[in-house]
Amino acid sequence: MAANRQIILARRPQGMPDDSNLQLVEADLPAPAADQVLVETIYLSLDPYMRGLMSTAKSYAQPVAEGAVMAGQVVGRVSESRHADFQQGDYVLAASGWQDYAVQDGASLRKLDPDAAPISTALSVLGMTGFTAYVGLTEIGRPQPGETVVVSAASGAVGQVVGQIARIKGARVVGVAGAPDKCAHVVDDYGFAACVNYKDDDFPEQLAAACPDGIDVYYENVGGKVFEAVLGLVKNLARFPVRGRIGRYNDSEAPPGPDRRPALMSQILVNRLNIQGFLQFDYSHRETDFRRDMAAWVQNGDVRYQEDIVDGLE
Amino acid sequence: MAANRQIILARRPQGMPDDSNLQLVEADLPAPAADQVLVETIYLSLDPYMRGLMSTAKSYAQPVAEGAVMAGQVVGRVSESRHADFQQGDYVLAASGWQDYAVQDGASLRKLDPDAAPISTALSVLGMTGFTAYVGLTEIGRPQPGETVVVSAASGAVGQVVGQIARIKGARVVGVAGAPDKCAHVVDDYGFAACVNYKDDDFPEQLAAACPDGIDVYYENVGGKVFEAVLGLVKNLARFPVRGRIGRYNDSEAPPGPDRRPALMSQILVNRLNIQGFLQFDYSHRETDFRRDMAAWVQNGDVRYQEDIVDGLE
Repeated sequence: MAANRQIILARRPQGMPDDSNLQLVEADLPAPAADQVLVETIYLSLDPYMRGLMSTAKSYAQPVAEGAVMAGQVVGRVSESRHADFQQGDYVLAASGWQDYAVQDGASLRKLDPDAAPISTALSVLGMTGFTAYVGLTEIGRPQPGETVVVSAASGAVGQVVGQIARIKGARVVGVAGAPDKCAHVVDDYGFAACVNYKDDDFPEQLAAACPDGIDVYYENVGGKVFEAVLGLVKNLARFPVRGRIGRYNDSEAPPGPDRRPALMSQILVNRLNIQGFLQFDYSHRETDFRRDMAAWVQNGDVRYQEDIVDGLE
Repeated sequence: MAANRQIILARRPQGMPDDSNLQLVEADLPAPAADQVLVETIYLSLDPYMRGLMSTAKSYAQPVAEGAVMAGQVVGRVSESRHADFQQGDYVLAASGWQDYAVQDGASLRKLDPDAAPISTALSVLGMTGFTAYVGLTEIGRPQPGETVVVSAASGAVGQVVGQIARIKGARVVGVAGAPDKCAHVVDDYGFAACVNYKDDDFPEQLAAACPDGIDVYYENVGGKVFEAVLGLVKNLARFPVRGRIGRYNDSEAPPGPDRRPALMSQILVNRLNIQGFLQFDYSHRETDFRRDMAAWVQNGDVRYQEDIVDGLE
C-alpha cells in the first residue's frame, strides 16, 4: 500500500512565507475505526485564509500547530468505509488537509453528486468561496438595481462570484484587479461593466471614471490603495462587507503615519457607512438558499467560473 | 414691539471655536405671511453637531452661511398665527435657530402637548437626542440580554438615554465619562452597572475590569482614547453604532502615525465587527415606535433624564 504524503507546517513564517515554512513528509497510511472513512484526496483548496492558519496571531480560525498537516478543505474519494452512509468510490467533501489520504469521521463528510456538477466546484463556486461571496454580498452589501458595486481581487475565487451575483441583482459592477488580462477576463467572461488595474499610476482616476455615480457597495478583499481610492468615491449609506485583507496578510507591524484611523471613523459618520467584517460561518442558515440559487445560476449560465488547478501535492 | 435678537455666525472657527465666531445682533421682528406662524423661542437646543454646521467641511448637514442665524431646533410659543392649525399660545417644535422670534411655515411645525410631558423634553429625551439614542441602539447596537454595552459621553444628552434603553433591554451597561460626579450620576440615577473616568491614567485597565466578559456593543460618541481602549476589549460580532466624534470635531489635520487604519480594518475582519455610521433621519420610519416606547418609559420611570438649562439667549 502507498505511503501517505503530507505537507506539514515546518516553521511559522515571519512576513512573506517561503519554501522553508512547509515540508513534504511521508507517513504511514492510517486505518479507519468504526464510523470512520478513509478518504483519498482528489482536489485540495488553496485559499488566502491559510496564511492566517500559519500564524499564531489572533484570527478567526485555530492556527495549525508546528509539525502538523496544513489544514484545508478537500474533495476526495472514499477508499475504505466503516460508516454505513458511505461506500468505496463515493465522492465527498472533507476537511482533511494537505495530504494524500486521511481518516475522517463519517459524520463530518458531505457526499457529492458528480452528475449534478463537476466535483471540483464543491471547493469553488458551489463551495466555501461561492458561499462567502453570496452571504457577504446579499446579507451585508445588499446591492439594489442601478447601484454601483466595486469588487477588489475581481478575478479571484470570491471576487468573480461576487461580481456576477451583483450583476444578477441588477447592479453595475466594477472590478479591480492587478493585470490587464484579469481585467479583460472579468469584463468579457463575467459581465462586469468595467475593470480597473490597481497597478496603473492613475488607478484612482480610472476608478473614479469607472464609477461616475459613486460607489454604493465595496466588497473588501485586499485593503491598501484600493481601499483608499474607494473611500474617496463612496456614497452616503454605502456598505462594505469585509472578508479579506490579502494586501496586509504578511504585514507584521503598523505602517508609518499619518494616522488615518480618525479620518476613517469620521467618514463612517459623515457618509453613514456600514463596514462589517464577516465569516461565512456566521450565516450558515443561508446555506440552503445559497445551494439552490447558485446551482440554478451555474446551470443557466448566469454564473460562470474558472478554476486554477495545479497537479501534484508536491 | 420688541426687536428680534439673533445669534449669527460671524466668522467660521479654525479649530476650537471662541467668542469671535458668534455675534449677537438685533433685527426687525418679522411678520408671518399666509399659512405662516410667528414663533417666540422658549427653549433652544445646543448640540455637538452644531460644530459641524459652523464649518464648510463635508458633513451630514448644510453648513450655516457666514452672517446667517445659527441653526437649531427650538421649543416655542405661537405669538401670531396665519395658519389654520395653530393658535396664539400653542406650543410648537420648530427648526428656527438661535433667535427670539422666527417666522415659520405652519406645515414645518409640530404641536406639543404641555400636559403629556414638559415641553422642554421635545428637545431632549422625547426629541432628537432621545430618538438618536433609540435608533442607534435598537437598529445597529441590538443589545441582547446579558450582553455588555459601553456608552461614551455617558452623562450626555444621548449617552444617558442609550444606557437606560440598553439596561431596559437586559444588557449590562458600562458608561465612560470625564468626571467622577458624572460617573456617579449615571450609576446612581440611571442604573448603569459601572462607569469609568477616561481621564484617569489607568482608564484602559479600569474599563477592562468593568467589562470582564468583553464588549458586545459600543455606542461611539467621542473617538480618541476611549475608542482605542474599547477596541482592545471587543468580542466577536460586536456592533458599533457611530453617531458622534466629539473628540475630533475641532481637529483640522490627520494626527501623526503610526497609521492605525490597517489594524482597525484587520480587527473588523478578525472579530467580524459591524461599525456603522448613522443619522437619526435615516430611521424616520421608527419615529412612531420611538414616541410610544419612550413616552411609556419616561412615564413609568424606566428612563429618567436631566436637562442643563441656561437662561438668556446672550
